[in-house]
Amino acid sequence: MTVSRTVELEGHIIDSGTMARCFGAVMDLGGEFDVEAFEVGRHKHEETYCRMEVSAETEADLRAILHELNQNGATIADPRDATLEAAPADQVVPVDFYSTTNHPTSVRIDGEWVPVEEAEMDCALVVENRDNGEPRVRTRVLNAIEEGDLVVTGETGIRVEPPERPRGKGSAFGFMQGGVSSERPSKSLIEEIAQEMREVREADGTVLVVCGPAIVHAGGREALAALVRNGYIDALSAGNGFAVHDLERDLYGTSLGVDTETLEHPRKGHKHHIYTISEIGRAGGIGAAVSEGLVDSGVMYECVENDVPYVLAGSIRDDGPLPDTITDAIEAQDAIRKQAHEADLVLMLSTLLHSVAVGNCLPSTTKTVCVDINPATVTQLLDRGSAQAIGMVTDIGTFLPMLANELLE
Amino acid sequence: MTVSRTVELEGHIIDSGTMARCFGAVMDLGGEFDVEAFEVGRHKHEETYCRMEVSAETEADLRAILHELNQNGATIADPRDATLEAAPADQVVPVDFYSTTNHPTSVRIDGEWVPVEEAEMDCALVVENRDNGEPRVRTRVLNAIEEGDLVVTGETGIRVEPPERPRGKGSAFGFMQGGVSSERPSKSLIEEIAQEMREVREADGTVLVVCGPAIVHAGGREALAALVRNGYIDALSAGNGFAVHDLERDLYGTSLGVDTETLEHPRKGHKHHIYTISEIGRAGGIGAAVSEGLVDSGVMYECVENDVPYVLAGSIRDDGPLPDTITDAIEAQDAIRKQAHEADLVLMLSTLLHSVAVGNCLPSTTKTVCVDINPATVTQLLDRGSAQAIGMVTDIGTFLPMLANELLE
Amino acid sequence: MTVSRTVELEGHIIDSGTMARCFGAVMDLGGEFDVEAFEVGRHKHEETYCRMEVSAETEADLRAILHELNQNGATIADPRDATLEAAPADQVVPVDFYSTTNHPTSVRIDGEWVPVEEAEMDCALVVENRDNGEPRVRTRVLNAIEEGDLVVTGETGIRVEPPERPRGKGSAFGFMQGGVSSERPSKSLIEEIAQEMREVREADGTVLVVCGPAIVHAGGREALAALVRNGYIDALSAGNGFAVHDLERDLYGTSLGVDTETLEHPRKGHKHHIYTISEIGRAGGIGAAVSEGLVDSGVMYECVENDVPYVLAGSIRDDGPLPDTITDAIEAQDAIRKQAHEADLVLMLSTLLHSVAVGNCLPSTTKTVCVDINPATVTQLLDRGSAQAIGMVTDIGTFLPMLANELLE
Amino acid sequence: MTVSRTVELEGHIIDSGTMARCFGAVMDLGGEFDVEAFEVGRHKHEETYCRMEVSAETEADLRAILHELNQNGATIADPRDATLEAAPADQVVPVDFYSTTNHPTSVRIDGEWVPVEEAEMDCALVVENRDNGEPRVRTRVLNAIEEGDLVVTGETGIRVEPPERPRGKGSAFGFMQGGVSSERPSKSLIEEIAQEMREVREADGTVLVVCGPAIVHAGGREALAALVRNGYIDALSAGNGFAVHDLERDLYGTSLGVDTETLEHPRKGHKHHIYTISEIGRAGGIGAAVSEGLVDSGVMYECVENDVPYVLAGSIRDDGPLPDTITDAIEAQDAIRKQAHEADLVLMLSTLLHSVAVGNCLPSTTKTVCVDINPATVTQLLDRGSAQAIGMVTDIGTFLPMLANELLE
Repeated sequence: MTVSRTVELEGHIIDSGTMARCFGAVMDLGGEFDVEAFEVGRHKHEETYCRMEVSAETEADLRAILHELNQNGATIADPRDATLEAAPADQVVPVDFYSTTNHPTSVRIDGEWVPVEEAEMDCALVVENRDNGEPRVRTRVLNAIEEGDLVVTGETGIRVEPPERPRGKGSAFGFMQGGVSSERPSKSLIEEIAQEMREVREADGTVLVVCGPAIVHAGGREALAALVRNGYIDALSAGNGFAVHDLERDLYGTSLGVDTETLEHPRKGHKHHIYTISEIGRAGGIGAAVSEGLVDSGVMYECVENDVPYVLAGSIRDDGPLPDTITDAIEAQDAIRKQAHEADLVLMLSTLLHSVAVGNCLPSTTKTVCVDINPATVTQLLDRGSAQAIGMVTDIGTFLPMLANELLE
Repeated sequence: MTVSRTVELEGHIIDSGTMARCFGAVMDLGGEFDVEAFEVGRHKHEETYCRMEVSAETEADLRAILHELNQNGATIADPRDATLEAAPADQVVPVDFYSTTNHPTSVRIDGEWVPVEEAEMDCALVVENRDNGEPRVRTRVLNAIEEGDLVVTGETGIRVEPPERPRGKGSAFGFMQGGVSSERPSKSLIEEIAQEMREVREADGTVLVVCGPAIVHAGGREALAALVRNGYIDALSAGNGFAVHDLERDLYGTSLGVDTETLEHPRKGHKHHIYTISEIGRAGGIGAAVSEGLVDSGVMYECVENDVPYVLAGSIRDDGPLPDTITDAIEAQDAIRKQAHEADLVLMLSTLLHSVAVGNCLPSTTKTVCVDINPATVTQLLDRGSAQAIGMVTDIGTFLPMLANELLE
Repeated sequence: MTVSRTVELEGHIIDSGTMARCFGAVMDLGGEFDVEAFEVGRHKHEETYCRMEVSAETEADLRAILHELNQNGATIADPRDATLEAAPADQVVPVDFYSTTNHPTSVRIDGEWVPVEEAEMDCALVVENRDNGEPRVRTRVLNAIEEGDLVVTGETGIRVEPPERPRGKGSAFGFMQGGVSSERPSKSLIEEIAQEMREVREADGTVLVVCGPAIVHAGGREALAALVRNGYIDALSAGNGFAVHDLERDLYGTSLGVDTETLEHPRKGHKHHIYTISEIGRAGGIGAAVSEGLVDSGVMYECVENDVPYVLAGSIRDDGPLPDTITDAIEAQDAIRKQAHEADLVLMLSTLLHSVAVGNCLPSTTKTVCVDINPATVTQLLDRGSAQAIGMVTDIGTFLPMLANELLE
Repeated sequence: MTVSRTVELEGHIIDSGTMARCFGAVMDLGGEFDVEAFEVGRHKHEETYCRMEVSAETEADLRAILHELNQNGATIADPRDATLEAAPADQVVPVDFYSTTNHPTSVRIDGEWVPVEEAEMDCALVVENRDNGEPRVRTRVLNAIEEGDLVVTGETGIRVEPPERPRGKGSAFGFMQGGVSSERPSKSLIEEIAQEMREVREADGTVLVVCGPAIVHAGGREALAALVRNGYIDALSAGNGFAVHDLERDLYGTSLGVDTETLEHPRKGHKHHIYTISEIGRAGGIGAAVSEGLVDSGVMYECVENDVPYVLAGSIRDDGPLPDTITDAIEAQDAIRKQAHEADLVLMLSTLLHSVAVGNCLPSTTKTVCVDINPATVTQLLDRGSAQAIGMVTDIGTFLPMLANELLE
């Protein structure tokens, strides 16, 4: 016995790899396909349409195949409304809940396609009613599910739009690039990133910078502070460690006779690290420390002075949290989520961990720049199927000065 | 004008590198030394004694030098009691507080050397009185400091014992090894680790295992579960992700027609991941899920069945926490600290992040085994000056089966 | 003014990614396409056919596009014979020579499609006449070109068959996989590799093993020697260093009272290294050293005893060559080329450098297994567009014993 | 029964780690030591003297210990002349030959200490007579040994001077640094390297640059060419691949309508690679290609125009050698050896392989700068016990422009 279902695909589905992935998913999962209609896009601006019947030996197999096809943009033909089921308890999803991609998605409710708000992967979709009675569909992370929430289940009535290959020549922003080219000249890439930042700024967009402590160690702190001061950065996301290192450089950069620009402290100055946290704590937080003149330079200082909002998240590896640091992982993730959803361009600078947290919340349509000296980090961060991403394997201590030079001169 | 102070060192200070580090610290920090007495240990079991006057141009320079010397085992001659100062506020240390190493340390109070409890690096030392009036000295992490705590300041009256090179031939456990040899045969190293585990078990010691999700991906889960079942593991520390992957393998290992042993799921089964968290949440936690028969195999299952306590810590990268997961970083760190202080042997298996958190809390005297496929991870984890550590760059998916084979056959 | 040309594609060109790459190449290089005919393969065993006109603004642009399309399997419609031009001098190719892929290729001569012998990438194609007057086409590396050789130029009359996605479910051998999964259980993968080796052996095929010195350091030497002894290896390719380390372990494994199994020699025994080369040199080579009983164990010993032919190549990093080592890079490459062309299955074990040399000579149809502890190495080696390749990131010191165990028990 | 011998050490042997290594070697190899005299250097400019009797259970054990002690600077007390033995055949060393370190070494002949010419590690020492009858001692690599050469054997009459920790504060040039600090600001380090280059230039010293192809890919080619043009580089060492990429950028940088600055060629332009070799071959070599105007920019062009000598070495991975490339590994190594011995400062830029070959030939006294984006490469290159080395983990595509900027503005 076989079971089958008909699905449709439309768009630049050949060169974007969509058709290849869909045929592949059917074969990988042991199914069969029967193409009923195929109208190829003859020119590069024409779209292709495909309708095919997909079959499998069991309902479970077919469901797995349809799930994959859906996530790659196929919709079930003869569209019906999405099925909804109430969450049985807080933080519990109904069996067969629909797990989201990070692509633009719509859900069919009462015959209308309702666009999903705030695309984010690995979430549930919850349907609510607006005050005017109109339905809205929101992504909801598991721990935000409440008993009784109407959760979308199955694959019916859901439309996903995976990114399509841009028409025309390639650009610095790669299309769903899985690897990282080290064969592109660093200087040219930095110029393209600067250009992108200028454009976002002119369009009053939001540039979110995600910062790792290596920025401070490698000597990129002053350049980043200058970018904040000159209005190129609209929001900052980092771990507790980045802020402590940035503040420590301000507070103890030349203290005890050790010039930190030229000579490593034998024990890496961990005592200064603790002092910094202690002193900021005594002042009551970073903002207070800036107000009372304790802190007068650096990235965090410029954020306070220029009203650039920041989120600092704690971790179990911290020496101690600053008062500003959110130590609860759920609360911190929610704050990061809000930053991610508001960003038009995200610069991930030398931090795998915080960047993964931000990247988890990003829709695939947000432009992303990942800079790290470790190619494995860049590859992992780009591997979210982002429609427009630049990966650059370079030294943050030379990257930031050259970027600031490009933008500020 | 120069200021000076006399310090003493004693022990196997030449071959342990202590003298080299102390002379180096003086020169690096711009000071001078004048060796007043030097009695070399003539044979390998004889200790060496050195007394030298250290001088610098300013008090601040001298203090920096004395701090380094102290942390390497030098004590200030003509010992006086340690100086104590009350903490001015919660989570704030007095200026010039003493920042700990992870080596055994004693503090001189009323003419007596009181050993510090629970050595841990980058902490303050707090002096309390026992019920019987005897003083005790405890390490206290910054965020646990309370207003009025008597905190040790300066370098006077503090004695540190850095690890000494073991006498005799080298063993698998390296002495303060900074790098990682990939030139030792894997099979022989596994035999030595097994032997160590047998000895700790026979001595009723505590083996703490620190686990990364790669254990599950690479196929080491069953072997680790068998080690737990057979009493070779006494405590487990991990992130939320490890537990979810372990439980997911139990719940969905063969579901939906996809055999996870032989075929990767195209989208990596992230839906199963969420389901797993949701289902364990519905049951009320891992213990409850085992009790009701929902979970019946794997590492977490064996921990529950064999009363092996575990700590699961949350992070901002989690898809959602299990009910058992501690999401507050401070609380989680405290739970990890307790595990670390009780361990006699720590196995760090394929996780940099959680291992760093555990390692931060370990005294330098605890035996440590670090296993990871990334040499940089092993190097970083061994870089705490541990007296006895084995680093092994290998595949956890072949390491654990071979270790279990060695111990269980 | 635009210039244009019509090309055809046929086969499983959608799911193999061929159509996506061809459309992409046209757009990347600034051209246009006009699909004149498109007959989709309706089922998974039906092939797809596409005919399209490709246009560009200049002849040079069009030629660049046609070159890319050709290398991805497109043929110019209305086929004519390939154009041939005599090489103007030794080691000099005619302008616009055809540069090969590593895929099966045919060249049209006098109206007949002649298959190219010994597919290899980045070579020229030279047309010769057999004794019976039939034409033959051979790949010829640049330095083997002789004045007057008839070299294929342009893209006309050349047909390339890039690998197609296998029909049916995925197997351990990935299709053109660019990345490396670390999410597959190591033990299962080893079983699949063993099974492949058994099949090649039963079919009287040739298994070529490419060996790095890490095999000896990590403790995999005895297992590999056992595989050679038991007939699972038919040819060996390595650098001078591998052979020296293997022989040194035989000659000095326990010399001077140092047990090499358990204790590293402080200066890494480089003196033994030189001695080994010196002693084998005195004997007159590896074969002679085996004959006179100087060498009586190890991988090289088993190769000599079991008539397994080997190629050893020298490098500028060698301490000194063995008499068996080919020190001229061109001669060594030719010897490696011969091995590569005869192999049915290639095991690349813990050596990036020698594996790249072998891989450069391999057709895309040869099955390949790459094992290394460094994921970047595995990724780089798989990145040749091989039709069937397994990449495994593991420890050679545990991999080889487990593989031998699987095959020999 | 025990055997024993008395050895002496002198110099800054405590803070340089020499005493620690010597005591450690005795214990590691199962011996005993009895310190007969120890006069500590009281101030930082005073030297320490140690005389100790070393004993072991067998002659073989003692010999192993003495070998280690010798290589770390210990000399056998009551000095006698070195023992010499004739090499039994070409490329064969006598049993118990002395294997060199890369430190300054002297050999006692007829009661005189004769300094060894051209220190290089893992070589033999051959004693010859000058025309005036004076003895000379030269390092000789194994394959250069000729039958009858008088080779030094044993450890008697040999004095090694391992590098000593510089007095005073630390500098950018680290002392025998095993690891690599990523915690130093990139810009400051580049300034220190520039300063070093200026000093060598002013002293009419020789700067040898060792180049990898990544210089061209990452966009550092023009900056390096400018450094050659302005006299900051005195010799160049590279593989065939570097020269081909440099020349290809000159010949085909904008050919076929593809602007290599901004757009990657889909198949990486391998055809251009072959063309480049073919065209340079047609011209008769790089010098001829410059003379006839075929090549008019780039690093190789500037070398030819400014009479900067270069060595290009072939490898089995080359697509085809340029006429200038030395394809025989022994010949190439000899040419590299000559370059290495003449250099006062060596810049190793983004090439592990060629740098290892150069580093193998360097005395430990030559200043070395290693720049690579991969920390493992930098660590491996610094791991030769060099007295003065700077390791920098950075992007060559930003490093070279910033270095040229520093030196040329």
